[in-house]
Amino acid sequence: MQLKKFNVAVVGATGVVGQEVVKILEELNFPINELRLLASERSAGKRLTFKDSELEVDILNNESFSNIDLAFFSAGGSISKKFAPIAVKAGAIVIDKSSIFRMDNHVPLIVPDVNPDNILKHNGIISNPNCSTIQLVVALKPIYDLVGISRIIVSTYQAVSGSGKDAVTELDNQTKQLISKKTPSRLVYPHQIAFNLIPHIDEFDSNAYTYEEMKLIHETKKIMRDEHLKITATAVRVPVFTGHSESVYIETKKHLNIEELKQLYLKTPGIKLVDDMANNKYPMPIMSETYDDVMIGRIRKDLAEPNGINMWIVANNLRKGAALNSVQIAQLLIR
Amino acid sequence: MQLKKFNVAVVGATGVVGQEVVKILEELNFPINELRLLASERSAGKRLTFKDSELEVDILNNESFSNIDLAFFSAGGSISKKFAPIAVKAGAIVIDKSSIFRMDNHVPLIVPDVNPDNILKHNGIISNPNCSTIQLVVALKPIYDLVGISRIIVSTYQAVSGSGKDAVTELDNQTKQLISKKTPSRLVYPHQIAFNLIPHIDEFDSNAYTYEEMKLIHETKKIMRDEHLKITATAVRVPVFTGHSESVYIETKKHLNIEELKQLYLKTPGIKLVDDMANNKYPMPIMSETYDDVMIGRIRKDLAEPNGINMWIVANNLRKGAALNSVQIAQLLIR
Repeated sequence: MQLKKFNVAVVGATGVVGQEVVKILEELNFPINELRLLASERSAGKRLTFKDSELEVDILNNESFSNIDLAFFSAGGSISKKFAPIAVKAGAIVIDKSSIFRMDNHVPLIVPDVNPDNILKHNGIISNPNCSTIQLVVALKPIYDLVGISRIIVSTYQAVSGSGKDAVTELDNQTKQLISKKTPSRLVYPHQIAFNLIPHIDEFDSNAYTYEEMKLIHETKKIMRDEHLKITATAVRVPVFTGHSESVYIETKKHLNIEELKQLYLKTPGIKLVDDMANNKYPMPIMSETYDDVMIGRIRKDLAEPNGINMWIVANNLRKGAALNSVQIAQLLIR
Repeated sequence: MQLKKFNVAVVGATGVVGQEVVKILEELNFPINELRLLASERSAGKRLTFKDSELEVDILNNESFSNIDLAFFSAGGSISKKFAPIAVKAGAIVIDKSSIFRMDNHVPLIVPDVNPDNILKHNGIISNPNCSTIQLVVALKPIYDLVGISRIIVSTYQAVSGSGKDAVTELDNQTKQLISKKTPSRLVYPHQIAFNLIPHIDEFDSNAYTYEEMKLIHETKKIMRDEHLKITATAVRVPVFTGHSESVYIETKKHLNIEELKQLYLKTPGIKLVDDMANNKYPMPIMSETYDDVMIGRIRKDLAEPNGINMWIVANNLRKGAALNSVQIAQLLIR
């Protein structure tokens, strides 16, 4: 039997997420017939390596999607808004990393480890959740299924690569400037990020939460299919290049033994339990360069609340938090 | 009337906290007759500036405390354990930064803004709380007094200067090494701290919490005089030189309006409200070089829990978190 191969487009191919998508398509040996790399005029003509060949990046335009089966979008909300419907019209299925379709009732919001069945009812667009949501729901899902979850309180520690290439450059530049006693220059963030923390990701909503915090709240409810889930969040940018971390407090509906939870995590695909105090082992952002799984550690009972559990969750925001999850959605689609 | 002046010793005078104590004694014009700087052999002979004179650092020994009225200790637990009783015997009152006496029932644990009355019953030793506890209780106290607090969930973002001078050097060195693509060297922390996060401060307790987390829990209860306060914590080291930050979730006993809380904070001495979304103003570690007050911002209601409040608290861990609080304890003593 001849396996079907697909014509795949990557929109935003030169961005931090787009480049990871190309890498992961190769790593996972995704069945590709033609790979079309698309970006804005600024990046057109650049070349990316895919398998043994060098591919040139084309300018994204209205004709970019002819004969495309699958289009990965990671070029920001306005590009998705304009070109995703064009891609769908041309016959492609769009897997979109931007936030603009995520809360649309007709658009599935998918983490393949968590809610694969939701993918069945799509109208051509499938949304990839926010990076900080993905790693959270992967960690929550086994608990939710086993004993139920009544509330979640999350504080994030988010890497700069979540803001794109320019933010990576900004942390690098500011660090060099500060190390040599120069005044740090700013372009991406409203304040210095090197050796600092910024408790402000995306814009402020009128309710005093940031959009990033609201994404965590809304998307988690949508993915878990539980509108009544109590969840609140504080999102903070930290001077780390890659790897988002989350300090998460969970209250379960029924009692859950910590050892039982660890055993559950040990056998859950997509999760890597890293919880060995005696050897100073726990998840850290620098480990996310090595591991694709969502890493969970520092699991312990709240000493005051019998159903309360604290844990520490780390994942690579460019891979599981973005590109890898997108390609996993594509794998789910073609299955 | 002639104001009384005091003979003051600073033990650990060349450490990051000790140096701040000397600076703050000068800044606050503490009534000093003699200032005696003490440290280990390694630092003896070094000179520190105090007002218009240069003072030489003496070697700490059993005779160091003769005629001393007040002794500030910030040279670690084992030095406090050995020399604080000697200082008390010699007639001094000890203000100790280490953790070893803090939970002793006969030792007051004081944040002058929060529990000044507790200072009355001491036996010669007064403990300064842990840095992360101080800024937390300063923020909690006005809420506690007004509407009561039923639970607290804290995630910390702690600067390296909390681990002392060598840790500051380590972050600086590792940053330089990584920026020039070299392998980072390690001495203080079990893992790379530059461009990374370490969810592990102080040693692990058998209950899977770290001592740092347990200090936050126990000390907060002691200072608030409320054994039933539900509090849990996750403590994380971040690549920031100075300024501890905390993402804090509070549940109040009675309902509290956010505007009312902001008004309360505005009129509370020792607190600086920094909460102006429209102008991207919120507390950040780099601001703690400028402000001594505990900075509070990002105050907002939990959207799911009527009595839940999120906030973001930042303070200078060397000043309010250590040296300044110690000198404020001394001011309280001599009043």
